[in-house]
Amino acid sequence: MARVKITETVLRDGHQSIAATRMRLRQMLPVLEAMDEVGYNALECWGGATFDSCMRFLDEDPWERLRTIKKHVKKTPLQMLFRGQNILGYRHYADDVVYEFVNRAVDNGIDIIRVFDALNDPRNLEASIKAAKDTKSVHVQGALVYTISPIHTMESFTKVAKELQDMGVDSICIKDMSGLLSPYDAYNLIRMLKKHLSVPIELHTHCTCGLGEMTYMKAIEAGVDIIDTALSPFGEITSQPATESMVMSLQHSIYDTDIDVDRLWPIVDHFKNVRKELEDEFKLTMPSQINPAVRKYQIPGGMLTNLYNQLKAQGAEDRFDEVLAEMPNVRRDLGYPPLVTPTSQITGSAAALNVLYGRYKIVTNEVRDIVRGKYGRVPGKIDEKFRKMCIGDEPVITHRPADDLEPELEKSKKALADEGFPNASPEDVLSYTLFPEVALPFFRKRDNK
Amino acid sequence: MARVKITETVLRDGHQSIAATRMRLRQMLPVLEAMDEVGYNALECWGGATFDSCMRFLDEDPWERLRTIKKHVKKTPLQMLFRGQNILGYRHYADDVVYEFVNRAVDNGIDIIRVFDALNDPRNLEASIKAAKDTKSVHVQGALVYTISPIHTMESFTKVAKELQDMGVDSICIKDMSGLLSPYDAYNLIRMLKKHLSVPIELHTHCTCGLGEMTYMKAIEAGVDIIDTALSPFGEITSQPATESMVMSLQHSIYDTDIDVDRLWPIVDHFKNVRKELEDEFKLTMPSQINPAVRKYQIPGGMLTNLYNQLKAQGAEDRFDEVLAEMPNVRRDLGYPPLVTPTSQITGSAAALNVLYGRYKIVTNEVRDIVRGKYGRVPGKIDEKFRKMCIGDEPVITHRPADDLEPELEKSKKALADEGFPNASPEDVLSYTLFPEVALPFFRKRDNK
Repeated sequence: MARVKITETVLRDGHQSIAATRMRLRQMLPVLEAMDEVGYNALECWGGATFDSCMRFLDEDPWERLRTIKKHVKKTPLQMLFRGQNILGYRHYADDVVYEFVNRAVDNGIDIIRVFDALNDPRNLEASIKAAKDTKSVHVQGALVYTISPIHTMESFTKVAKELQDMGVDSICIKDMSGLLSPYDAYNLIRMLKKHLSVPIELHTHCTCGLGEMTYMKAIEAGVDIIDTALSPFGEITSQPATESMVMSLQHSIYDTDIDVDRLWPIVDHFKNVRKELEDEFKLTMPSQINPAVRKYQIPGGMLTNLYNQLKAQGAEDRFDEVLAEMPNVRRDLGYPPLVTPTSQITGSAAALNVLYGRYKIVTNEVRDIVRGKYGRVPGKIDEKFRKMCIGDEPVITHRPADDLEPELEKSKKALADEGFPNASPEDVLSYTLFPEVALPFFRKRDNK
Repeated sequence: MARVKITETVLRDGHQSIAATRMRLRQMLPVLEAMDEVGYNALECWGGATFDSCMRFLDEDPWERLRTIKKHVKKTPLQMLFRGQNILGYRHYADDVVYEFVNRAVDNGIDIIRVFDALNDPRNLEASIKAAKDTKSVHVQGALVYTISPIHTMESFTKVAKELQDMGVDSICIKDMSGLLSPYDAYNLIRMLKKHLSVPIELHTHCTCGLGEMTYMKAIEAGVDIIDTALSPFGEITSQPATESMVMSLQHSIYDTDIDVDRLWPIVDHFKNVRKELEDEFKLTMPSQINPAVRKYQIPGGMLTNLYNQLKAQGAEDRFDEVLAEMPNVRRDLGYPPLVTPTSQITGSAAALNVLYGRYKIVTNEVRDIVRGKYGRVPGKIDEKFRKMCIGDEPVITHRPADDLEPELEKSKKALADEGFPNASPEDVLSYTLFPEVALPFFRKRDNK
């Protein structure tokens, strides 16, 4: 019987999507044992924005969080989200940082690492996949960022997925962070992936465009192995479809998740209260509406708001529609990158500049770096004339961008010693390397220094 | 090609579910012509709670609203929701009121009347269906209230649907007001209905349990003809699945709605602003979370909150779970009524009394009236012993409850004349008959009397 497995995201993407990544460890603790009994495929509980958020907003050590969760969750694999060469930050780090981070994550309790790259350039995942495989214990999942463009096809996604499989990943994930994947497209894509790949396939989507549940339903009928869901207090809207709803939907069908929905209600009640606590403490406005127009512009929802506010700050909010109309042109010029951090911001600001000052009268450094190949290989082609205009006769990088990066860890250790932490743990060195300005004040406070 | 039609509910159930039925006519007017061009099957824009709300909260004449909408919507049929013998109120009205209301509604612009009864007793729909058919112009749709119980089966729903078809309805609607219908159950139910009925089948659900979109998807694949959706600013959560999302999902499939999604965005933008206006003016807290637990208890979401607050008022909130556990027993005793106004309230308060004071130590008049048959025929059987305990040897009504009601309109007219409105229009007489305490102050204000 084809049965579907559930990865629960409430401890990571759920509160990242609904509550600005503000959930504390102590708000997880009371239900960890109960969650361990549910029969989930995995608990996504680390990585993504949680690492930064722990230190920046919650005075919490992310490594300590991981170790504590591991103590209470003995049966269910713990999963993290890892941005490939970006690790959990926003720039490319050197390979020694990637290797060390993967090893520390695994030693502290991670069982599944999901790696992805904003451009779907497998070379940006090489180091993290190799590091994971070298541990001989962690499950490494290669994630493909889903997007819509004239050059992204079922075949092109399948091709990248096969490359990842050939690199040795244990499973493949389609990561649809803006909720763009439509139900029948999901059906066809999953069918094709199942036909051409031998590893399990997982689907990760968001409800932003109102498609999430339908997309899961059709993906399941096409044979997807695992879906990501979030318990309802941190599910739906901009997050994943609700766990309870998916479990109930599939109950008694040939796709039954084998999860007893009655085990979920007490956990749901707990997180309802946590939601209220976070709303009160951080004065959060939780998202209350989906935004299907995201699919029209194919830009993440947050990006739409940012773009509008940027224009408004310049008194040019009346040109918002022109900027949106310019986005597809910029995206074409840049070789159709998926729109996710940082490519969404880069594309958006370029479109705004084009509208306000004339097309490419101003070219940002980030646009030049994409053209230079510094972010990796773009999915499509960059026109020769456009390249010349941006970077003249400068060479274009055709090798793996991280090959140009010097090792960083020893320098980090030294800098940390200079700041008064000569015996920093390997974990602290990593925290500092990724987020120096956040980690240092956090360390001082934590260690009363 | 099997193509799916869309009935847009933003002008009725959308704002009733999300914004306490507070949308004003002037907030609809700017987009009515644009909505008329979309190619909807119908615009649900009247009836349900809107009639009461117009006079009670908005100082608006509901009849004037209908006439004005009709002036601007020339091509798309206008639809209303009609509670059978309850019309738009909360008690059974006499047949003369039902007849007159149907005729006035049609003369003022209604093209489709959806009629339903809380107990699915077709006799409570006889008068409204006959009145509608006698107009020879209006489309009358018979709606079945969906519920889950040990005696409600695909077969029992199909049987009632066939009775309605035999009574001459032009189409059938499955009305799933709590969002309980699961996707694969929807598939099987629609298949069975399509097999045994010749009239078109419409599905109306809510997203409350997180199932709505999936349920539509499977219903569509089973051949449903029409689905009800609400534009996203008043869709999702406790309302219908979002129109844009359903249109995008089906685009380019064999179920394509033929609606051009680009026609929807400007209308969506308009209603986003209306949503903000309503939030500000009425200090509304819009629902921001689904509540899948509604399906566990099979009680409407609002009912759960009411019940809890009632218990709290008596300092007995710690017995909430016991009351919820007692609900199925009371429901069994009452012959498994669907839980919708007024049966949800009656069942809930009986369960609370049973827990607080001992089982049926106190029996409410409403429980007695259900046992007496005054609400109509309950779906299941009421046990002899239970009946005796409630009403002793009193007779049980086996005829149509409204047969016992004297004509009301002449009395209403007279009462209205006594109040200073001797020349009240037929529409005003109806408004007064349904909601005397609301209509009178409204008339005085409107007419400066």
